[in-house]
Amino acid sequence: MSALSILFFQLHKVDTVFMQTSLLQHPNILQTKQKLKLTAARLVNNHVNLAVTGLSGSGKTAFITSLVNQLIEANEAAHLPFFSVVRESRLIGVKRDIQPNLSFSRFAYEEAMAKLTQTSPEWPASTKGISQVRLKIKYKKSKGLSKYLTEDATLTLDITDYPGEWLLDLPLLDMDYAQWSKHCQGELSDPIRHDLATPFFNAVANLDLNARGDELALQKASELYTQYLIDCQSNGYQLLQPGRFILPGELSGAPVLHFFPITDLQLEQQGIDLNKPLKDSNAELLCRRFKHYKTEVVQPFYKDHFKGFDRQVVLVDCLSALNRGFHSYQDLQKALDWLMGSFQYGSSNILNRLFQPKIDKLVFAASKADHITPEQQTNLVKLLESMLHSVRKQIQFDGVSTESTAVSAIRASKSGLCQQNGESIPVLQGRNEQGAAITLFPGEVPQSCPGPEFWKQQKFEFPKLSPPPDEYTTCSASYQNGSSTRFFTRG
Amino acid sequence: MSALSILFFQLHKVDTVFMQTSLLQHPNILQTKQKLKLTAARLVNNHVNLAVTGLSGSGKTAFITSLVNQLIEANEAAHLPFFSVVRESRLIGVKRDIQPNLSFSRFAYEEAMAKLTQTSPEWPASTKGISQVRLKIKYKKSKGLSKYLTEDATLTLDITDYPGEWLLDLPLLDMDYAQWSKHCQGELSDPIRHDLATPFFNAVANLDLNARGDELALQKASELYTQYLIDCQSNGYQLLQPGRFILPGELSGAPVLHFFPITDLQLEQQGIDLNKPLKDSNAELLCRRFKHYKTEVVQPFYKDHFKGFDRQVVLVDCLSALNRGFHSYQDLQKALDWLMGSFQYGSSNILNRLFQPKIDKLVFAASKADHITPEQQTNLVKLLESMLHSVRKQIQFDGVSTESTAVSAIRASKSGLCQQNGESIPVLQGRNEQGAAITLFPGEVPQSCPGPEFWKQQKFEFPKLSPPPDEYTTCSASYQNGSSTRFFTRG
Repeated sequence: MSALSILFFQLHKVDTVFMQTSLLQHPNILQTKQKLKLTAARLVNNHVNLAVTGLSGSGKTAFITSLVNQLIEANEAAHLPFFSVVRESRLIGVKRDIQPNLSFSRFAYEEAMAKLTQTSPEWPASTKGISQVRLKIKYKKSKGLSKYLTEDATLTLDITDYPGEWLLDLPLLDMDYAQWSKHCQGELSDPIRHDLATPFFNAVANLDLNARGDELALQKASELYTQYLIDCQSNGYQLLQPGRFILPGELSGAPVLHFFPITDLQLEQQGIDLNKPLKDSNAELLCRRFKHYKTEVVQPFYKDHFKGFDRQVVLVDCLSALNRGFHSYQDLQKALDWLMGSFQYGSSNILNRLFQPKIDKLVFAASKADHITPEQQTNLVKLLESMLHSVRKQIQFDGVSTESTAVSAIRASKSGLCQQNGESIPVLQGRNEQGAAITLFPGEVPQSCPGPEFWKQQKFEFPKLSPPPDEYTTCSASYQNGSSTRFFTRG
Repeated sequence: MSALSILFFQLHKVDTVFMQTSLLQHPNILQTKQKLKLTAARLVNNHVNLAVTGLSGSGKTAFITSLVNQLIEANEAAHLPFFSVVRESRLIGVKRDIQPNLSFSRFAYEEAMAKLTQTSPEWPASTKGISQVRLKIKYKKSKGLSKYLTEDATLTLDITDYPGEWLLDLPLLDMDYAQWSKHCQGELSDPIRHDLATPFFNAVANLDLNARGDELALQKASELYTQYLIDCQSNGYQLLQPGRFILPGELSGAPVLHFFPITDLQLEQQGIDLNKPLKDSNAELLCRRFKHYKTEVVQPFYKDHFKGFDRQVVLVDCLSALNRGFHSYQDLQKALDWLMGSFQYGSSNILNRLFQPKIDKLVFAASKADHITPEQQTNLVKLLESMLHSVRKQIQFDGVSTESTAVSAIRASKSGLCQQNGESIPVLQGRNEQGAAITLFPGEVPQSCPGPEFWKQQKFEFPKLSPPPDEYTTCSASYQNGSSTRFFTRG
């Protein structure tokens, strides 16, 4: 699916939902009364609040840049096959408008475009916090809907980009410090993680948890825990908590980030009950800071922003995880389980209970689909679906429409066929990280994660490509599960 | 005055206020009933909330580091002459305690001490936002107060360090965008400032203020305005507004910082009434952002934190301003006028009206008093007082005790006498910025700012000194207006 077709869904829905009454016929119609009201309000307002997230490196900036660019530049139907408004020549114009939230960074579209279109194109710089862009999309209403054929309509599209790491913090809201510590112990039992945590373990080994709170000791141990998280990240792990430890922003150096998990063994040896820690002891301080982190750092994001989103795109870089190996892939799987937990709309779900978000459409998209040959893209979508399988069922049951797909925000390759020993082999042409032209068959994408045996013998080596030179910039490799492959080339 | 004696004032007051009833006998006693209640509560709690501020480069970090160090290391009465608790051997111990605000940075005392005591000592890194340190000071009560001679008391001292630039933003709360623009025009009429603002002026010259809001154009112009402020700073100006433009923190790139002043001429030429700008025009956007900056950036600091402070130290680096020349000195004077406006406690004062702060003691301290010879320090205090003269009267009238003094947080020089042509000349010994030993007479400090004629002929060249090698680290050059000079050397 192109970046556009996700929007297509938005527009299409806004435009035609009165005819396609699938939402209205949903079996949970009574339970979703409130949601329908909201949807109706949004239809009237023609306002879509699209949130884009994904773990670090998943391609959020490239995705939004491409989406904005294709909309602003959309003038030929051929480039936007999924976008009925364009196909039917109903698009009048798209322009960036004044963003609603003055305290979010302005999405750096112009800077990203400059990097992508310079003589030696580079990928845009990744964002470190929230940013936003508002587009006004003016189009003619389709016949079915409008009373007057010539009537124009405007869709306001707010796109908000935020770090996926923040979503990983959501489940913390349902935990106390003791539960979180236990959870982290599970993580730390992974041999590679355990190894990376050695300096941290050494620092906390001699910490007297019953002693009067020692701010400096806790700070130093938390810095080692942060370093452990950073080392995990460079070793291919993505389930990294607490999320703000890696991107602290203005909280850098603040005690609210000076906590870390402690082991059952330590609690036992020192005779500590985390429900009744000694007043002002190190143990109580850790509990207090964990709580403060939840209420003052995690909650505000959801309370202030998350509940405003209608549609959510989660970008997932499956290919890089495969490249990094089994542990990385398994970790990504775990991180996705956590992420998807945020979108479970059961009544017991914390997000729903606390913040009543109104997201009714959730798209999981495997990014960098242009880094493999077209015939492998069905597999990529299947691979992503296999990762999402367990949690997805519940989301669907609760009336949130979900979809998994593969996207290539900015197509960095051309696909073709190569003759070898009389056989046609699908290949990609692109530029490697150094900018040199390469032609290669990147390999097959598995439909699900291979078992441990496979990894002892083999590994994946999907290429890292530079952004394309101008002649094929801002094109979309586009593929949707089950449909045929299409490529759209511009210029 | 040493850093300590400011605290001495705190302790002394807590300890002896019942005997020294000056506060209770104040003529405005009816009006200050509320304040007295607060003071009483603080006496009972033995809790002092000391805020330390000053414009960039005034020496806040060194000051707090020295204060904390001297308290923690205080074990010989000789080093702490102003500190009655120590002089009378009543101090039992001081230690750093758990800081109350988890979201403020922990004041980096250990890092600062490490820098000051390394083989080639360096000044500690300056802080970019708020930081905090809490000390618990345990001492024996003096005979006059305690029922039992052996009774111990504990004073909790919270020290909060924040950028003086944030205080410069306070007067904005009383202005609308039109008034602020007019104020900035005044600033920009200074020839040097005007020159530095050329790129900014060029960018706004062609901006159609009635045209529909162009976010990117406003962003670009605001970036040039920020650059102008940065250039002003490196040219010795300190009245730089809005304060967050230079230290944006997490607001970097956010539209709330994308505004700038416009000139009357432009308003006139384009026929704009800022009370009634066209909806969604550039002019309206500028008004809206200025308002948002006031309510979402400036106000929260005062609302959340400022009103908690009891005592305020404002550090002023008069010597560097003299070094930089007349324009810099005049600008510092203006900046101080603005700063002091924050502390005017008249009923019409915005700070008082909105936030009801309880600051009852305000100390203005000329920093780096060790960079001049001892006999010049009376002049330094007089110079500072001449800067503060106009606004200070009003503060005193409103029952806030103010004091001006000179401090040397970390004494970087030794003073002595040098024989030249049979005359004794006072000199300093220290190390220059490159770490080489120097002996010099830094010059005379004027008692007030010399007139423009003086500056055409002469200039000031007070030295820049490196922190001292270990043998005289963390000593205080100490001087108080009117009293005799004393130096205290440790180790």
